[in-house]
Amino acid sequence: MSSASTPAKSISVAVVGVGGVGAEFINQLLAFPQPSPFRIVSLSSSKTHFFHPDGLSITNDSWRSELASAPNKLDFPGLVRELAGVVAPGQKVVLVDNTSSEDVAALYPTILGFGIDVITPNKKAYSGTLQLYERILSSALESGARFLNEATVGAGLPIISTLKDLVATGDKITKIEGVFSGTMSYIFNNFSTGAATGPAFSAVVSVAREKGYTEPHPADDLNGADVARKLTILSRYIPALRGALPDGYKSVATTSLVPAALAGVASGDAFIAQLPAFDAHYDAMRAAAAAEGKVLRFVGVVDVLSGTIKADLEKYDNTHPFATSLGGSDNIVMFHTERYSPRPLIVQGAGAGAAVTAMGVMSDLLKLV
Amino acid sequence: MSSASTPAKSISVAVVGVGGVGAEFINQLLAFPQPSPFRIVSLSSSKTHFFHPDGLSITNDSWRSELASAPNKLDFPGLVRELAGVVAPGQKVVLVDNTSSEDVAALYPTILGFGIDVITPNKKAYSGTLQLYERILSSALESGARFLNEATVGAGLPIISTLKDLVATGDKITKIEGVFSGTMSYIFNNFSTGAATGPAFSAVVSVAREKGYTEPHPADDLNGADVARKLTILSRYIPALRGALPDGYKSVATTSLVPAALAGVASGDAFIAQLPAFDAHYDAMRAAAAAEGKVLRFVGVVDVLSGTIKADLEKYDNTHPFATSLGGSDNIVMFHTERYSPRPLIVQGAGAGAAVTAMGVMSDLLKLV
Repeated sequence: MSSASTPAKSISVAVVGVGGVGAEFINQLLAFPQPSPFRIVSLSSSKTHFFHPDGLSITNDSWRSELASAPNKLDFPGLVRELAGVVAPGQKVVLVDNTSSEDVAALYPTILGFGIDVITPNKKAYSGTLQLYERILSSALESGARFLNEATVGAGLPIISTLKDLVATGDKITKIEGVFSGTMSYIFNNFSTGAATGPAFSAVVSVAREKGYTEPHPADDLNGADVARKLTILSRYIPALRGALPDGYKSVATTSLVPAALAGVASGDAFIAQLPAFDAHYDAMRAAAAAEGKVLRFVGVVDVLSGTIKADLEKYDNTHPFATSLGGSDNIVMFHTERYSPRPLIVQGAGAGAAVTAMGVMSDLLKLV
Repeated sequence: MSSASTPAKSISVAVVGVGGVGAEFINQLLAFPQPSPFRIVSLSSSKTHFFHPDGLSITNDSWRSELASAPNKLDFPGLVRELAGVVAPGQKVVLVDNTSSEDVAALYPTILGFGIDVITPNKKAYSGTLQLYERILSSALESGARFLNEATVGAGLPIISTLKDLVATGDKITKIEGVFSGTMSYIFNNFSTGAATGPAFSAVVSVAREKGYTEPHPADDLNGADVARKLTILSRYIPALRGALPDGYKSVATTSLVPAALAGVASGDAFIAQLPAFDAHYDAMRAAAAAEGKVLRFVGVVDVLSGTIKADLEKYDNTHPFATSLGGSDNIVMFHTERYSPRPLIVQGAGAGAAVTAMGVMSDLLKLV
């Protein structure tokens, strides 16, 4: 029974993916103050899933073991059909995709077409082909379902919501520039501090890997693809770029920091072992930057006026916020706009990690209440 | 007639106050892409107002002259009654208060009680007495109407929305620290750059006033009340402070930069003329800070752990973002939380001006769609 003070569980949430971000999201959702408008109707790991249209009886302590002992293997299209049956007037259904699966992302148009909202930190959809992006848009428009992906850029930081607000209120974006990769941020905050010398590039990468700041294979960060994906996602929220959007992240001009000679090295350990052979190259770049009073930062730029989108290693003055203000594995994003000119709107903070990524997902979910 | 692609004008907007922010807001609202869910049902200046329940036929070019020639004088309680008659299932009514009137703010509980949403950059309500704040909360809870005031802190910057998201997703705020006054930011960014000497304090204040960065009477900025108001507003969104909230901004420990001897000076011109007599005091403070490698900044702090809320002139290291990253009349806000620790979440940018303030109001309005 519902009243003003005890709202009905009007939002059914299906959670796909129970890794670091997924587990943290489930914890945040279960901890939402009562009376909560949310009920979890489905949990799916890569091995098992369970579903009940009236909501699962799970707690922070129980969901892992209940999911582990669920009999079903995941039949994802079947799950989508079951969820579609829950959609009803006054009953929203949201699929929260906490995987990084390309296959799940490919199904978003179908899911949205059933009137099921999609919320995700999965970058694959909006950084993929233009065709998939446009099918997501048109499916959502037709059914009225919403697609929200705040956590794909900057995790819990208000990056996409700020961009959308700027655009929706009539501001004109001229340039977005930022350090979008927590890994790249950590590496260059430590490698290039303004001094001509310092620790070896390979040593910094190695420490970053030990601390868990890189993917198991550091080349997956150093190739710049993660930054290119984020730039692709942002570009798709900028009206002035319509008609000039990259056809997926592979179309973004990206400087890879993976030495060509190491491009085929399959194991992360072997990659780290061979990386010192390339330290002299980075030493020279650091020294050259320092001689100009500059630091090296791996940045992403969406220059709307020139239509340039690129992920590259650039030099910034020692007095620039990318030099003075960053630390740890911070992300920083500067929005240069018609209104925020000459000084940009800046958002900064941790841009990776399970708790802050789950927060970005959860903040999207709250937009549906 | 409405369909998926041509939504009904389901949100009726009454705009009170057509000064700088109000006029810019009306322009942003009228420029909203068609089909727009908004219709303006009422415009009110301090002298005239007009109202039509089916929406006014106005354009960006016409509204000023139409409002100027409207016959009615503003009968605010009468307007509220008329708006209450527009509220219906599927028909939201929003009062956008772009005044800084205490009288209008005092009516928010009544307005909300009629089921009318209130959106405002007016700081008077949430920085006023606890009693008014609590009546706003309970009226909104009872009727289901929403009260949104993003633009009261940092104008268009996502400050309040970020704070609400942090709280709603279960993060714990430990400290909020920032430069909340664009005027104070400009003054100290120019007065205290890390050097032992520089321009006189009175000269910087005088230039700030000439550039329009201060109120006509600079004491209205230098007294710190604006910062105290913003801290009061923020504190009310922090659950851990419930039971320890200031009873309005006057309860916030605030250091006024108005010399006691000038407290009674009624005119801004006379104040500026007499301010140089106090320059030596600020020169000495600047030199003392510089000797420690620090700068002076007028900041606001909400320290949740100790329960301290204060607006004060503080010293910050030359390497601190308040020293290195600020320019112009930027606001900057650092959220220290359980998740954003040890490095805070930071939002920075212009925190005053009609266009960015109206954007903050407009972004609140978009949350209702």
